[in-house]
Amino acid sequence: MTFAFNITHKDPNSYARTGRLTTPHGTIDTPNFIFCGTKATVKGLSPMQLRAEQVDIILSNTYHLMLSPGADLVAEMGGLHKFMNWDGPMFTDSGGFQIFSLGHGSVADEIKGKANRIREKSILKITEEGAEFRSYLDGRKWFLTPESSIDIQRKLGADLIVQLDECTPYHVDKEYTARSMEMSCRWGDRSLAEWKRKDDGKQKMYGIVQGGVYPDLRKESCEWTANADFFATAIGGSLGSTKEQMYEVVAMCAPMIHPTRPVHLLGIGSFIDVFSNVLSGIDTFDCVSPTRIARHGWAMVKGAPKERLNIRNARYVNDPDPVDSTCDCMACKNHSRAYIHHLFRVGELLGMQLLSIHNVATMTRLMRDVRKGISTGTLDQIKKEWVV
Amino acid sequence: MTFAFNITHKDPNSYARTGRLTTPHGTIDTPNFIFCGTKATVKGLSPMQLRAEQVDIILSNTYHLMLSPGADLVAEMGGLHKFMNWDGPMFTDSGGFQIFSLGHGSVADEIKGKANRIREKSILKITEEGAEFRSYLDGRKWFLTPESSIDIQRKLGADLIVQLDECTPYHVDKEYTARSMEMSCRWGDRSLAEWKRKDDGKQKMYGIVQGGVYPDLRKESCEWTANADFFATAIGGSLGSTKEQMYEVVAMCAPMIHPTRPVHLLGIGSFIDVFSNVLSGIDTFDCVSPTRIARHGWAMVKGAPKERLNIRNARYVNDPDPVDSTCDCMACKNHSRAYIHHLFRVGELLGMQLLSIHNVATMTRLMRDVRKGISTGTLDQIKKEWVV
Repeated sequence: MTFAFNITHKDPNSYARTGRLTTPHGTIDTPNFIFCGTKATVKGLSPMQLRAEQVDIILSNTYHLMLSPGADLVAEMGGLHKFMNWDGPMFTDSGGFQIFSLGHGSVADEIKGKANRIREKSILKITEEGAEFRSYLDGRKWFLTPESSIDIQRKLGADLIVQLDECTPYHVDKEYTARSMEMSCRWGDRSLAEWKRKDDGKQKMYGIVQGGVYPDLRKESCEWTANADFFATAIGGSLGSTKEQMYEVVAMCAPMIHPTRPVHLLGIGSFIDVFSNVLSGIDTFDCVSPTRIARHGWAMVKGAPKERLNIRNARYVNDPDPVDSTCDCMACKNHSRAYIHHLFRVGELLGMQLLSIHNVATMTRLMRDVRKGISTGTLDQIKKEWVV
Repeated sequence: MTFAFNITHKDPNSYARTGRLTTPHGTIDTPNFIFCGTKATVKGLSPMQLRAEQVDIILSNTYHLMLSPGADLVAEMGGLHKFMNWDGPMFTDSGGFQIFSLGHGSVADEIKGKANRIREKSILKITEEGAEFRSYLDGRKWFLTPESSIDIQRKLGADLIVQLDECTPYHVDKEYTARSMEMSCRWGDRSLAEWKRKDDGKQKMYGIVQGGVYPDLRKESCEWTANADFFATAIGGSLGSTKEQMYEVVAMCAPMIHPTRPVHLLGIGSFIDVFSNVLSGIDTFDCVSPTRIARHGWAMVKGAPKERLNIRNARYVNDPDPVDSTCDCMACKNHSRAYIHHLFRVGELLGMQLLSIHNVATMTRLMRDVRKGISTGTLDQIKKEWVV
């Protein structure tokens, strides 16, 4: 079997479920977390270190890799799996999210209520044909279409790929959101057609549900993805301006999306977000935060206030305990808060490595607990242990 | 047995020898390389990663640790071994080298023929009592004496410690070198006295041979160290302005230093330097270069021109081979030159980690080859494989 998704347990009181997602590079249990290896590396960690902390699946970003080292180079090197030496399941996005989020302010920033940062506009033109933008590396012009996104993703060679969509920010109005969603559907059809044209059985595609915060638009988009010949569904686009609105938008999709295809929620991954959104049937999550916040000295800790502790805080200067005494990752088994605090204080790379390992391990542990919670009907209890 | 040094083989045609150096934290074969973990971490690598590449012994720098996190904090955390979770043999220097090299230009720079860089002077005063200097971190004044250096090193708790000495740069004249060497002898006596006052059997001390490039001064210093109650001998100070002069200075010490104590050569570690200096009876080396040059994209490679290759070179962009196809380190077993080239090009931390692992592994392999060469009388042949 090369690709399959089997639902193994359904929660009777919600859309929560456990499952097994099979790809040519292995099978993962769901719900699961897809770790971001933006530029063909989960920042700071080797594939062996990921495996040691029970990572099952990673993603890379088409946008970054198309610019450097380029899809043709990755293909010449035998594809992304071989290039970065990751032999497990892998996912690539379409490039769209970065083009639009780097182009007119991050959607994640908007969800978090931050003002748009001032950046030079890198999107030059969005047309029915595709999106023209400038490379963040050297300012060179690029033009990405549904067909070229799929062509690039084919060259990269991940197991799971994604249609191109336009990722609208929160501040656009309903009319723009509707027009954009409709164009994303047409881009999805073109993405599917391009994929089918050269389908060799090695990749399967996610369609993306757009529609912003508007129930009628989400419904239209859900129906379109369910009727199109996608292997799986991703929920994208603006999810509102608050966490509560995000949960609402995801929840409104739950009854409308294809019921037996795997469902991915793009770019979301805090503890509370995972617990909230699995109730709406989300099977996989991704987010850069575990390794990003690690590099800034934040450790994700089960049951901690705001889900994390700041290892730079002076209170840890002589703390002999591990970051999380209930964690059995390499960092917690071997090193104290005092030592990691020291490493950050004197600017040593090992500090970033150790907290990255810990945060990755914490996310894999969270997902194991979530699966157990769903399959045994104890998710509420487990949530209370993780989120205070 | 807590401390011992047993010479296991002597080369009949030189001072080269193999041996076994025993400490309370284990026994290492010599000649060996002591990896620099300046601020209680070999930069970028965990103790487990060091062990995986067969590292036997590491050092930390008293100067850096006394400033941050401070010797008392390390002592409170159970000593350096426990603080950084390294359970093997460990060495600390006296703090002197950094005070003087940061204070008036690096000795290593002078050996390499570089002009002194312009830096703000951080040495404030050198007297018979000790050295006053400003912290490189915050400009605060510190005063280091032989007694305080030993006290700090006792708190840090490494197995092998070093007397305080004045490390003279190459440009000073013979008269200054002579006066300085004589003061270093007196500082050595004071270091020994302070160590003996609280000797608990857990640490042994190296005396340092000074005397610059002057045979009569080196002779006087060698005789002093041999007659003083040190466990081991280190060769320090200015070793001249060229590699040839360095080999000469070390060679002139060979017949004069204590013949059965372990001998360390401070701050030296290229392939050619190792091969040249083991002929003068050097048992251990240390140098920051394996991990430092790794962070700048240089891979140490057996038999390569100038001992290294620059992984940033465009020629490696699509090179599927490992950095060194004869190397079995984690990086070479798992990753291509093309991938590591990519990581450096896009500024990913993993690139530094992989080359650091490779360079550390290469040095441990070099030392295994050197030991084999000495014990089997094939050192010349092995040198030809490593140095072209």
